[in-house]
Amino acid sequence: MEPLTPSSLDELKASTQVLAFDIFGTVVDWHGSIMREMQALYPSVDGSAFALAWRVGYQPAMARVRSGELGWTRIDELHRLILDDLLLKFDLLHLNESELAHLNRVWHRLEAWPDSVAGLHRLKKKFTICSLSNGNLGLLTNMAKRAGLPWDCILSAEVFRAYKPDPATYLGVAATFDLQPHQVMLCAAHHDDLDAARACGLRTAYIERPFEFGASQPKDVSPQASNDLHARDIHALADLLGC
Amino acid sequence: MEPLTPSSLDELKASTQVLAFDIFGTVVDWHGSIMREMQALYPSVDGSAFALAWRVGYQPAMARVRSGELGWTRIDELHRLILDDLLLKFDLLHLNESELAHLNRVWHRLEAWPDSVAGLHRLKKKFTICSLSNGNLGLLTNMAKRAGLPWDCILSAEVFRAYKPDPATYLGVAATFDLQPHQVMLCAAHHDDLDAARACGLRTAYIERPFEFGASQPKDVSPQASNDLHARDIHALADLLGC
Repeated sequence: MEPLTPSSLDELKASTQVLAFDIFGTVVDWHGSIMREMQALYPSVDGSAFALAWRVGYQPAMARVRSGELGWTRIDELHRLILDDLLLKFDLLHLNESELAHLNRVWHRLEAWPDSVAGLHRLKKKFTICSLSNGNLGLLTNMAKRAGLPWDCILSAEVFRAYKPDPATYLGVAATFDLQPHQVMLCAAHHDDLDAARACGLRTAYIERPFEFGASQPKDVSPQASNDLHARDIHALADLLGC
Repeated sequence: MEPLTPSSLDELKASTQVLAFDIFGTVVDWHGSIMREMQALYPSVDGSAFALAWRVGYQPAMARVRSGELGWTRIDELHRLILDDLLLKFDLLHLNESELAHLNRVWHRLEAWPDSVAGLHRLKKKFTICSLSNGNLGLLTNMAKRAGLPWDCILSAEVFRAYKPDPATYLGVAATFDLQPHQVMLCAAHHDDLDAARACGLRTAYIERPFEFGASQPKDVSPQASNDLHARDIHALADLLGC
């Protein structure tokens, strides 16, 4: 990406009012959290492979809602549909309903990346910070309370009854706060999410999360010129934004 | 109201998971805040009468949405419709659009009652605390950020696309958190709100706010037997709930 000139960075800092954060992978470590919980609960299962398989089912499940095959369905229910399909492969068919319900809520118990809580506290002093996640409101609230994520407001696909990358979600954040799209910045570790936000007129900040898929599968986190900002983590984003 | 026996209070404390708070009048002082801002901005206007007149328009405006005469309309827009109708009476026709927009957002700048912030911090240690207000999400977020209200989640009529006392709002809180209605307690300074919540199966706590309509117009805050709890303020509620 082109480095921002001091004047364009100043303009960006002055115009941005709301920072909306993607959650899974960007603020919390879904892979590590699920892997660790599986190791504790069901040590015979390959926790890393299990976490990856669960997450692989995520986009296809949301696609069933987007296409209309399923009516509006929350992520909690989609996670459970995917989980039920994984039980045979991972030799978990012996789990009873209570154990399955508990396991499904591991997504409410995901742990923050080490910089997330302190970085968000810094950003919150200057900006309104909110989630913009496909996770449902209850999941995001339970997660924030447990992990200490200091959101000013929890926004979710559930509020807009549409899953990212539907424009209704990105534009919904701007409308919620009576702002123009360029006054909202999406902060995410995924270029497709940022691309869709930018197409709606939002500013974008890429957050590197090289180990989103585990330490053994580092992902490419090279900068892309199309994003307004590129930050190693949320502390680095706070540095860039002068917080 | 009948005093709760120790065992029924213990049962209440054990089963309640979420405390949902009404906002206008219960957590923030709309009358005093608007009166003080009017005194500062437009000292020739009777700020108390102006605040009361604005609030009087509130229920009829929402009734226009409930009846279908208006499509879904946020409180920000309803407040503006009411405000526009008050300008002649209060000799404010000279205000320009920018001044009107600023004045309309006084509802985003309402101040908390003196016990609200500290009381909510106490309750938050043991319960999930959220708003359940007819105010819109942006209004409630701006208010919370400015006043320091430490919500775990901001819920609003805007999320459920229905205004209290529609059952969709009370039951919506329970559904958001995958709870049974009796695991949610509505905390409010208005018996009609509490009655509607109770009809949906929620627990209810009445919060006394004798000066909601100003020091010169104290309201009757006597206990009603139908509520589970009756508290002088939010600190007293925290005392009752053992926080």
